[in-house]
Amino acid sequence: MDPRTGLPVVGMVGGGQLARMTHQAAIALGQSLRVLAADPDDGAALVAADLQHGHHTDLAALRAFAKGCDVVTFDHEHVPTEHIRALIAEGVTLLPGPDALLYGQDKQAMRQRLAELEAPAPRWAVLDTAADLERFGAEVGWPVIVKATRGGYDGKGVWAFSTAAEAEELLASGTSLIVEERVPLVRELAAVVARSPYGQVAAWPVVETVQRDGICVEVLAPAPGLPDERAIEAQQLAIRIATELDVVGVLAVELFETADGIVVNELAMRPHNSGHWTIEGARTSQFEQHLRAVLDYPLGDTSMAAPVVVMANVLGGEPGGMSIDERLHHLFAAETGVKVHLYGKAVRPGRKIGHVTALGDDLDTVRERAARAARWLREGRA
Amino acid sequence: MDPRTGLPVVGMVGGGQLARMTHQAAIALGQSLRVLAADPDDGAALVAADLQHGHHTDLAALRAFAKGCDVVTFDHEHVPTEHIRALIAEGVTLLPGPDALLYGQDKQAMRQRLAELEAPAPRWAVLDTAADLERFGAEVGWPVIVKATRGGYDGKGVWAFSTAAEAEELLASGTSLIVEERVPLVRELAAVVARSPYGQVAAWPVVETVQRDGICVEVLAPAPGLPDERAIEAQQLAIRIATELDVVGVLAVELFETADGIVVNELAMRPHNSGHWTIEGARTSQFEQHLRAVLDYPLGDTSMAAPVVVMANVLGGEPGGMSIDERLHHLFAAETGVKVHLYGKAVRPGRKIGHVTALGDDLDTVRERAARAARWLREGRA
Repeated sequence: MDPRTGLPVVGMVGGGQLARMTHQAAIALGQSLRVLAADPDDGAALVAADLQHGHHTDLAALRAFAKGCDVVTFDHEHVPTEHIRALIAEGVTLLPGPDALLYGQDKQAMRQRLAELEAPAPRWAVLDTAADLERFGAEVGWPVIVKATRGGYDGKGVWAFSTAAEAEELLASGTSLIVEERVPLVRELAAVVARSPYGQVAAWPVVETVQRDGICVEVLAPAPGLPDERAIEAQQLAIRIATELDVVGVLAVELFETADGIVVNELAMRPHNSGHWTIEGARTSQFEQHLRAVLDYPLGDTSMAAPVVVMANVLGGEPGGMSIDERLHHLFAAETGVKVHLYGKAVRPGRKIGHVTALGDDLDTVRERAARAARWLREGRA
Repeated sequence: MDPRTGLPVVGMVGGGQLARMTHQAAIALGQSLRVLAADPDDGAALVAADLQHGHHTDLAALRAFAKGCDVVTFDHEHVPTEHIRALIAEGVTLLPGPDALLYGQDKQAMRQRLAELEAPAPRWAVLDTAADLERFGAEVGWPVIVKATRGGYDGKGVWAFSTAAEAEELLASGTSLIVEERVPLVRELAAVVARSPYGQVAAWPVVETVQRDGICVEVLAPAPGLPDERAIEAQQLAIRIATELDVVGVLAVELFETADGIVVNELAMRPHNSGHWTIEGARTSQFEQHLRAVLDYPLGDTSMAAPVVVMANVLGGEPGGMSIDERLHHLFAAETGVKVHLYGKAVRPGRKIGHVTALGDDLDTVRERAARAARWLREGRA
């Protein structure tokens, strides 16, 4: 409890853009997010008053950070489980808890648990040897998708192989792996929900996530043309996973849509790129909702603020040419109503440096406005 | 320019709730507002990373603060004009500039300037002696309104007198005063606009501001039942004042509506309570717009995000009973879609500690939701 305000103190481990945007939401709730940042130039480190420097793998830093927090939550999944358990033993409240967070950290554990829940999923197997891979490929058909069990993100830690021989080097590296069938997907969807310790769950409309080179470039809300019954199925699946896994906070369930239905691709237990559109596009943003959830406040209205909302990620373009400040001038001149979120990151090619959100009535128009705005920031041209 | 982000640094003198909410908007634009706070417990001081402590009347503190800022702007009107001129002489960019800001600081100068512009206004006079007051009262009718030329806000520095004798003590105090006729007002309105150095101006819809005991308690957007021609007249008046006075940033023109038309009550050259509804209620909030304006970015879309938006101020209630945290729980349970903004202030009776905003289609419903939410936070009951 902050004695100056009489309001709880939430700590977030990790100082990236999710912490940055959670801090924005915390300000409205009368709070100031306490941030543990590994790097003083992290996006949240640049903007949060209540900042501590330290690495998320350093138990002493985590312990010092947690002192005085009413609840500690996460900007990413990379805090070691043993540290989380040690802190809990010392009386710290960490949410989501380690038993839930495991399924956001470890893809093998996630696949096993979802199988127990009979949640729709690709066929998969633990992968230790070339013989395992050979057998799996023969069974489900090549190419197959190999994933690092831990630590992957944004297409990193994911490979497609057309023969077992191609995977030789990876298999020899000692990386813990699983293998999955390559699902004949129509598109990718995401069902984002939030859950409180009390057990309340709130779901935003299901969205389509458009990927390029393994990175999400666009989110369309709601997912265009998704039949109501499939949208409800996806939301109910996400709610069931959140409840069975005892998730607290935001849970993003990344889904593949196939001709036959939906299957779960990944889980993320934190605010997620597929929910950035909610800042302006929904009555309650995922960042506010995550705070409400970990504080066990009643959750907020998830209904949309406009019929169509499109979020486009802004990736860093080639260096040189117009400065980011000049690009922003041009974008604001061209698109007066598109909302910009820059993360305070130096521009590097392919790095997510921000996102833009457009709202409106017509998908094609809104999508084009968002894409044009993202292009201005990335390439310095319309 | 912040070398870490390639984006400009905006400094705001004053660490109150306006700076707090401007910091929220700055985060989205990739920036981190630099705040000069007189008190470490100021609302913005609790949340902004780039904080300096110092008083707005201390030239050395202002000078140190301005160093490295691309532009310096204001959370309030109380920075001495001579300090602003001294800093400008040293090369600091301060916006709005002193020639504009004067009319937000000095009611006599404002009344004189508006008279030159033939802007509609109450009859008024400079007030030095009881004889001045006697003469003015006899001419326009009692009661009359007496205002301190400088330093008033929220009903402070404003008095109604029914006889000259009642003002004896005030007149003897040496306070610089003006006197105005008491306008037979139907209601109060506000026309809020923003203007950039380039000369671009953007106007939000005209709102009704509902006062109680001289304090704004509610803002209704758009002003219910206001004929289009009167709304346009008010917007054009605000645009003309912004342009003629060379205002940069947000300008709030507080208006009285009478049976015959509108007259100007006050000017504020900064984000203003009558524009708080724009955070969720308009495509561009007054805080983002103020930043865009002082940075000479093109201004953002001012259209409404819903047909009806109501903002209710939250005043501190009597101490004791439920904590503010418990009140927030109840409010969130009762009103899942009302947006809360708490300013990080300790609760004191009558002190503005936050505001709530409700959006919807029907004025009565939206107004009742906002009022109920404000009541939960003030009184701990529905």
